[in-house]
Amino acid sequence: MSLLDGINSPKDLKKLTINEIQQLADEIREFVIETVSHTGGHLAPNLGVVELTLAIHRSFDSPVDKIIWDVGHQAYIHKILTGRKKHLATLRQFGGISGFPKRSESIHDAFDTGHSSTSISAALGMALARDLSGNKHHIVSIIGDGSLTGGMAWEALNYAGDLGKNLIVVLNDNEMSIAKNVGAMAEYLYRMRTAPSYSRIKRDVEILLRRIPAIGDRVAKTAERVKDTLKYLFVPGMLFEELGYTYIGPIDGHNVAQMEDVFAKAKLLNGPILIHALTCKGKGYLPAENNADKFHGVGPFNITTGQCIKLDDRPTYTSVFGKTLVELAAKDKQIIAITAAMPDGTGLSLFANTFPDRFFDVGIAEQHAVTMAAGIAAEGKKPVVAIYSTFAQRAYDQILHDICLQRLPVILALDRGGVVGEDGPTHHGVFDYSYLRHIPNLICMSPKDENELRNMMNTALNSNEPVAIRYPRGCGLGVPLQSELQMIDIGQAEQLLDGTDVAIIAIGSMVDTALNTARLLAKEGIQVRVINARFLKPLDNNIIRQAARDIGKIVTIEENVLAGGFGSAVLETLSSQNMFWVKTLCLGIPDKFIEHGSREILLEKYGLTAEKIKSTIREFLREHGAK
Amino acid sequence: MSLLDGINSPKDLKKLTINEIQQLADEIREFVIETVSHTGGHLAPNLGVVELTLAIHRSFDSPVDKIIWDVGHQAYIHKILTGRKKHLATLRQFGGISGFPKRSESIHDAFDTGHSSTSISAALGMALARDLSGNKHHIVSIIGDGSLTGGMAWEALNYAGDLGKNLIVVLNDNEMSIAKNVGAMAEYLYRMRTAPSYSRIKRDVEILLRRIPAIGDRVAKTAERVKDTLKYLFVPGMLFEELGYTYIGPIDGHNVAQMEDVFAKAKLLNGPILIHALTCKGKGYLPAENNADKFHGVGPFNITTGQCIKLDDRPTYTSVFGKTLVELAAKDKQIIAITAAMPDGTGLSLFANTFPDRFFDVGIAEQHAVTMAAGIAAEGKKPVVAIYSTFAQRAYDQILHDICLQRLPVILALDRGGVVGEDGPTHHGVFDYSYLRHIPNLICMSPKDENELRNMMNTALNSNEPVAIRYPRGCGLGVPLQSELQMIDIGQAEQLLDGTDVAIIAIGSMVDTALNTARLLAKEGIQVRVINARFLKPLDNNIIRQAARDIGKIVTIEENVLAGGFGSAVLETLSSQNMFWVKTLCLGIPDKFIEHGSREILLEKYGLTAEKIKSTIREFLREHGAK
Repeated sequence: MSLLDGINSPKDLKKLTINEIQQLADEIREFVIETVSHTGGHLAPNLGVVELTLAIHRSFDSPVDKIIWDVGHQAYIHKILTGRKKHLATLRQFGGISGFPKRSESIHDAFDTGHSSTSISAALGMALARDLSGNKHHIVSIIGDGSLTGGMAWEALNYAGDLGKNLIVVLNDNEMSIAKNVGAMAEYLYRMRTAPSYSRIKRDVEILLRRIPAIGDRVAKTAERVKDTLKYLFVPGMLFEELGYTYIGPIDGHNVAQMEDVFAKAKLLNGPILIHALTCKGKGYLPAENNADKFHGVGPFNITTGQCIKLDDRPTYTSVFGKTLVELAAKDKQIIAITAAMPDGTGLSLFANTFPDRFFDVGIAEQHAVTMAAGIAAEGKKPVVAIYSTFAQRAYDQILHDICLQRLPVILALDRGGVVGEDGPTHHGVFDYSYLRHIPNLICMSPKDENELRNMMNTALNSNEPVAIRYPRGCGLGVPLQSELQMIDIGQAEQLLDGTDVAIIAIGSMVDTALNTARLLAKEGIQVRVINARFLKPLDNNIIRQAARDIGKIVTIEENVLAGGFGSAVLETLSSQNMFWVKTLCLGIPDKFIEHGSREILLEKYGLTAEKIKSTIREFLREHGAK
Repeated sequence: MSLLDGINSPKDLKKLTINEIQQLADEIREFVIETVSHTGGHLAPNLGVVELTLAIHRSFDSPVDKIIWDVGHQAYIHKILTGRKKHLATLRQFGGISGFPKRSESIHDAFDTGHSSTSISAALGMALARDLSGNKHHIVSIIGDGSLTGGMAWEALNYAGDLGKNLIVVLNDNEMSIAKNVGAMAEYLYRMRTAPSYSRIKRDVEILLRRIPAIGDRVAKTAERVKDTLKYLFVPGMLFEELGYTYIGPIDGHNVAQMEDVFAKAKLLNGPILIHALTCKGKGYLPAENNADKFHGVGPFNITTGQCIKLDDRPTYTSVFGKTLVELAAKDKQIIAITAAMPDGTGLSLFANTFPDRFFDVGIAEQHAVTMAAGIAAEGKKPVVAIYSTFAQRAYDQILHDICLQRLPVILALDRGGVVGEDGPTHHGVFDYSYLRHIPNLICMSPKDENELRNMMNTALNSNEPVAIRYPRGCGLGVPLQSELQMIDIGQAEQLLDGTDVAIIAIGSMVDTALNTARLLAKEGIQVRVINARFLKPLDNNIIRQAARDIGKIVTIEENVLAGGFGSAVLETLSSQNMFWVKTLCLGIPDKFIEHGSREILLEKYGLTAEKIKSTIREFLREHGAK
């Protein structure tokens, strides 16, 4: 019988000896590796926090004490220890438990996370509420060094440091964001990791100071000041001390006993505390230790070899984007690539290796990435910022205020547009059409396949305009790639199929679905005109008008929320052009947050497969008759 | 003849002696006070940077060297010195020069600003472009201590510190955001301002160290380390040094000679440099020095008395919001108020004075403000975050990801929704309907007058749901305020006027305009049904259906961009409910950035006055006949 079998809540942990805890840590690692090898998930971050999570749950009293996991992809151990061990096999699958903390899932999940750098803000909010209610519990935020590059973490750190409320921030320092961490703070933390033992130096300094004879009043005063401030000098983390935190560390984030000792001390202190724990991402599974970037988030993999189980040989949109950008940049020295901590995820690693001088990884800092790109464009270069659709939400204001207001030619490559699958509601890229469409001066494109993505990139980089290109997660259609890149006329849609009964205008990933729908409907005698919109903005009003006149029934399909999205844009055009006779049907994501689960299941559930759309259109035609 | 008359470009400055520069500074102050007393504008920030701007333009070579003003409201002196002296009288007026830097206005404006904390990102982007092109010019960002509380400034500071590019950041430290600055960084800067002369202490320490006899090898080594590191200890700005900057300061930001000396040195150094200049906001005009908050941005005022010239006695939406919140909070201890550096601007000063324990000014940190509110709400309190619509753009992701995904009952009070007038395109709040409407779980309201604002606040604070209330800048309609606060049914519009020829569904500020339009049309025999939508979301589908059935012609009016806005929502409803017979006309802001100018002029220009709308509707009815 394993120790893990006996753990059903954090209380059970407190009965174990420290030796048993180490055994439990081993069991947990094995369990997590085994499970994630089937489900896929954020393996390396979780292996890095096994001991940290054990120490936290032994030292604090969840759910009375609040534990907030920044980003939250490292909360698997927390889930195992808080009653969800049995459900781990359902991790990230439709109907199963989430890969992130969710208040709706457990009383031990104090705050939902998913995007980076929010935990200190949330924790401080809880601390303010606690103090106003006269409660005394502890509030702990666990934040990675990578998340500290995000501006909102700074906003919270800066404010909390001044406010002086009781709050424990555990800095989980593994020297990584998703890739190797960047920035001056990362450098600073590195210096702390590698400095000689501070306690020894501090003792030596005290010996020295005792030997200083006082000379005159003023110099004596200075000697006092030196003594006072030397404790600062030889306390690492002075930067945090300057910001109002009691800094403790660095401590070994794999030594449960040491951590428990520190947490016990921290609970007695007042004011904000920053505990600096050093951890190793991927700890205990060699393939993940050696390649924490790849194992940050993985699909199913073979435990023995560490090889991912690849199910599809078609190239991903991400890889086509990455290769095409290198191809374009080889011919055009003005092209510069920028990522916010995701060189691999965005497909920019190849660019980074090929053109290191023109590649910039700014860390988890989407706002800065976008405005820095605006600065680059203002000087005549061609910056391409590759960000996941969901993370670009962080830079909405910068896209509007810094790029588009000045009409600067920055290219936004928005990967993971649409339903992303297992990462769920915090990560679906289903809002971008709606948050981009109303921004003046911005051109928005979405390719029907990976070959069109290439041509759109070519078009965008030769447009001298701000452009967003949005493409989905995962594999392309496997279409042949033209070796010669083409230009697409800005704002021009293309008709792919003619028909007289109904017109489907689809965009992006839904164009292929529209073609499949048309084939299904053709078998039932319904002739469909299929239009690939290509542009969310500017919309091709001519092709819409033509469809309105010729057919009078228009169906729009998009992998985006309907509110303010692509279909909404078509309706606006029909209204503004007085085409009031047209019957319309807009298909897309409804007005709710979409749960996690495979892309296939979710698209089916929300009616965005060819078969489902076929039925919906049949119904629509039944109600509204032939033209 | 004044010295100022002879200044037509930065070159002319370089011919003056340092005494003449002081005289010029006096002339500039007088000129700015005189001009702004007529035009209104950001008086105090500009009075604070007269000498700093002179020193910068004497030391650097604009436009070859790039000068980027963070926020940009302090660029009046820069405008005066770069050929726009003659145009200052047109400042912020329709067709005149902008109150912010604009690349389209002058070659000396290197980057458009308006929102806070963007300048280091932009400057770094320019530095990267410069280095890739092999150029050598200087790039200077001037950023206030208030702007440093914004997370994106941290993102840029952190990244630039590590990258090591040549870049000069001038920290304009006046201890203020708009109100008194907050946060640990502000505390840190304060300690630097008030510390004793560091050079004297450093000398004393050296005397001390010379007297330390070495004892043993290890301790000797430590003594060496002490000497090495003491220079750190006694260099102020160590925090910046730790982040990779050469720190110079604090220097007197009103002493041109000293600043020129420092800038000359900075030009010779490599890597990123941070120059810490101390300035006094409002310098040289006593009413502004004594009340820099009030004089941060002012309307026309009397120079002698410092009294604002108030043209309208009706209460502003802002003040009604502030008073009502105090009224509600007196009865409900769970209510908490949060501002991002604008206690006065948002009307929260009264709350701050009445309930200081429940009031939090987090500095210019909208992202943190929103997520901290989410943390507060997660613990059962009722946080109200008051932000200007345009600045809430910074927190789009946090509204979506931290509030609405968890359906936390945070109230967003979005002031300055719609056209704000003289501050122009960086500040118009004309996008909020579009960036909020597609967020699931969010309730969005907009009051027709200040009395309805009160009832909406009451409704929101009793809804236990995430709610955004959006209201315009400036005075309300002067309607009587009901003493008893009412509840409004969520999602219920109200019909204000019945008619049979056309239905107008208006929202927020446009409801009153719709009523006026209806009166004008009635004179011409056209009977209008007028509906106050109240809710952008959830939309009142019943009242829309009724109007569709009864009248079949619907006009929507909103003070927001049409793309994805309120009218767009009505069109979506008509489509999804198969009301295809309805003829629609959506009126609002077109798909472009709106220039600066008075609200009246701009609403007239964009066809949103009763007279203009009357004509547009007549035309619409002419084309589409009676029902």
